[in-house]
Amino acid sequence: MMPRIDRRDFVRGVALAGLAAEAKGDDKITPVQAAAEAKDVTRRLAHYVVASKPEDVPKLVNKEAARTLLNWVGCAVGASRHESVEIAIGALAPFAGPAQATLLGRKERMDVLNAALVNGIASHIFDYDDTHLKTVIHPAGPVASAILALSEYRPVSGRDFVHALVLGVEVECRIGNAVYPAHYDAGWHITGTTGVFGSAAAVGKLLGLTDQQMTWALGIAATQPVGLKEMFGTMTKSFHPGRAAQNGLTAAMLASRNFTSSEQALEAKSGWANVLSTARDYTEITKMLGQTYEISLNTYKPYACGVVVHPAIDGCIQLRNQYNLTATQIERIDLRVHPLVLELTGKKTPQTGLEGKFSVYYAAAIALVEGAAGEKQFNDALVRDPGIVALRDRVTATVDPSVGEAQVKIAITLKDGRRLEKTVEKVIGSVENPMSDAALDVKFLDLTSGVLPLAQARKLLDLCWNAEMLPSAGEIAKAAALS
Amino acid sequence: MMPRIDRRDFVRGVALAGLAAEAKGDDKITPVQAAAEAKDVTRRLAHYVVASKPEDVPKLVNKEAARTLLNWVGCAVGASRHESVEIAIGALAPFAGPAQATLLGRKERMDVLNAALVNGIASHIFDYDDTHLKTVIHPAGPVASAILALSEYRPVSGRDFVHALVLGVEVECRIGNAVYPAHYDAGWHITGTTGVFGSAAAVGKLLGLTDQQMTWALGIAATQPVGLKEMFGTMTKSFHPGRAAQNGLTAAMLASRNFTSSEQALEAKSGWANVLSTARDYTEITKMLGQTYEISLNTYKPYACGVVVHPAIDGCIQLRNQYNLTATQIERIDLRVHPLVLELTGKKTPQTGLEGKFSVYYAAAIALVEGAAGEKQFNDALVRDPGIVALRDRVTATVDPSVGEAQVKIAITLKDGRRLEKTVEKVIGSVENPMSDAALDVKFLDLTSGVLPLAQARKLLDLCWNAEMLPSAGEIAKAAALS
Repeated sequence: MMPRIDRRDFVRGVALAGLAAEAKGDDKITPVQAAAEAKDVTRRLAHYVVASKPEDVPKLVNKEAARTLLNWVGCAVGASRHESVEIAIGALAPFAGPAQATLLGRKERMDVLNAALVNGIASHIFDYDDTHLKTVIHPAGPVASAILALSEYRPVSGRDFVHALVLGVEVECRIGNAVYPAHYDAGWHITGTTGVFGSAAAVGKLLGLTDQQMTWALGIAATQPVGLKEMFGTMTKSFHPGRAAQNGLTAAMLASRNFTSSEQALEAKSGWANVLSTARDYTEITKMLGQTYEISLNTYKPYACGVVVHPAIDGCIQLRNQYNLTATQIERIDLRVHPLVLELTGKKTPQTGLEGKFSVYYAAAIALVEGAAGEKQFNDALVRDPGIVALRDRVTATVDPSVGEAQVKIAITLKDGRRLEKTVEKVIGSVENPMSDAALDVKFLDLTSGVLPLAQARKLLDLCWNAEMLPSAGEIAKAAALS
Repeated sequence: MMPRIDRRDFVRGVALAGLAAEAKGDDKITPVQAAAEAKDVTRRLAHYVVASKPEDVPKLVNKEAARTLLNWVGCAVGASRHESVEIAIGALAPFAGPAQATLLGRKERMDVLNAALVNGIASHIFDYDDTHLKTVIHPAGPVASAILALSEYRPVSGRDFVHALVLGVEVECRIGNAVYPAHYDAGWHITGTTGVFGSAAAVGKLLGLTDQQMTWALGIAATQPVGLKEMFGTMTKSFHPGRAAQNGLTAAMLASRNFTSSEQALEAKSGWANVLSTARDYTEITKMLGQTYEISLNTYKPYACGVVVHPAIDGCIQLRNQYNLTATQIERIDLRVHPLVLELTGKKTPQTGLEGKFSVYYAAAIALVEGAAGEKQFNDALVRDPGIVALRDRVTATVDPSVGEAQVKIAITLKDGRRLEKTVEKVIGSVENPMSDAALDVKFLDLTSGVLPLAQARKLLDLCWNAEMLPSAGEIAKAAALS
């Protein structure tokens, strides 16, 4: 693999510069200013996407795009045999078009629109994909699913592909910033409702749309938002990023042939932001366009469960590795946690892998035993394993109001009387403490093992890291197909 | 053609019975009652659709379904060569599946999902399709587009087809009743946002879904609403019923294979009615299910323009026919109109067919000259015809607050000094004064002329009237194909 710039330099560079600039901004604007800010928002955003050139984007931003891409590919391949994927393929195959694009991790191919849908579904099933923490958008699903499928049908260089990925994420996250949290609180699954714009913009960029066409593409996207939060806990949740990818693709394809739409789809009285949110700040869409990049703020989950449990897992793995611990040495584990931890993951005796994700007790135990908490650690057999159950029952968790959401205080008492302590201040996987490139590699290989042969997975990983240099981005998709 | 029961008997029967029953209802309910009404709304609606049998539906309701169907087919065939349709086919054909279903009025065939989209688009282009006036939903587009395309792929009897059409319209209009007008006022194009449910329910019925699956189908539909009012005036408006048909089809197909979804998609806190509307009354969805039929309240436009101009056109045509008028006899035409008429259609010197739709002056003139105001009467050549322009310039329109929206007062002064007057109290095309079957035939043949040979159009019309008796409903689609 290529030498890489460490992500930490990156965070201290571009991303934090953007955050600092934002902190200086004045959040209080008058109605007159608000009207001025609203003017031509859709057109201005469309123009930015059309005018942006690959060379405008800093190298470190493209580096983050590679991290975003490989994390997304790993998740999609990893869940490619899930029941949700099987059902979607079975239901839609009779109506699908030519075998234009790869279904990641599978043998079948489908037309571009259906491949985008299926890969988008797969990538969200484990809830292990990337997160733009400011808005809780999972940015890659809608955008990468659309453009990777397209790139097998309409060849595109790796450079243009990565550029489109950056722009698509920029569009969806900026629109998300403009309406978060009101829009999310209203009940919308923001990944699907903003993802349509990200997909339309990225595909539109690759299709070479004009300003007018790109504006229409955003309009056709605006009228097809996907996703109510009510669907959480069902297969339909994963449907959202997939359908957003497909809707955005459709929007860009129609616009490329001059299917007309509104030219102020975002800001009009009956436009997207007014209809789908009780509050909005259009400056989030237009300020410093081309100067900051939302993909710089993207994060990746190190553990295959809700983020509230991550500090406990992080600390337990650190203690395990620091002291080379084994389960039999441990007398008891005492956790001091943020209140949400017990509210959301207080299940004492989980019986299935899925229930294990909602048990901080099981999560701490498996972290100590396996030194990991990937999708494989949350399976029925391990959750019921007598040794792990015995350790799990020696875990206590107490709410401590002084402990933040990204924090935990751990005390492990060993049978030999020693007491080991660990305080996690900034959990791994946050913007400030991102997963390292090496950790992303491990996550990727873990997700893809059992689906793709190891050699193929390594090659695929390498292609993702080097996406920008590929003559044809479609190679990534082809390398993810099961032969 | 078959002998038919006259529509007027029908209106005095089932539909008005439903209206009367409704008028007795108490609109003021307490929060406790509201919570009770909300309970299991989605499940109850799903159960009704699953349990309903063709023989449960009164004959007069099925008669109205035939009227709904033929009006929709006429509109779709009529607009089948419109630029919006050409673009949609061109953009999507490269990704489309097998040639399973007819594009009405065209030679090409597409897969079921794309055919539903394209036919749905076509049917709304002239804004000449059916209207459920209580909610301004255009009910046929989303439902008929979906099930007619399906019926060529999965054979279905005419009886079951008509039953599914009735049920689909019931579902979308009841959901519309529950949130209208708040939902529409918020900016949603209600045809696309409720149409997904209608399509899912009708397709789900034909697929034989269980209660559980139908509930999921409504859930998958709920998460894919289509349509912002901001798109009015662009091609994207017509996209809405088409996409709603396609999304509902997809929802039912996925649910038929047990793709899970919410089981309270309509009424949950983050469900469709709470997220997409500021007010809602769930009793509109559940009361008297199976006793009243919303399709009984469906109406059809006699003229191819906005309804505010219809009274003036109606009155002018009546005077023309009553006195056998010609343009040269007429000295002047004075209209007393509802205020909205000049607000929406006050254009004095229209230059194009489309502009003619927004000119009450042109509309009155063309009605007097042609005795009709179909799509063909709103073309550029007629709008610029010197004789018609001269007559148009002799029309005055004055706002009269005593004139209702469905009314007009007309005074025509002839060159021989006679003064002819006409007051329209209830415009043709309203629920109380519906288009006759014969008028629907004329509209159908007018819409289809120039697209289909007359003999074929007559056969197609006959099939629509007799849909319920057909061994296979797909015959209707096949008869609408260009050979």
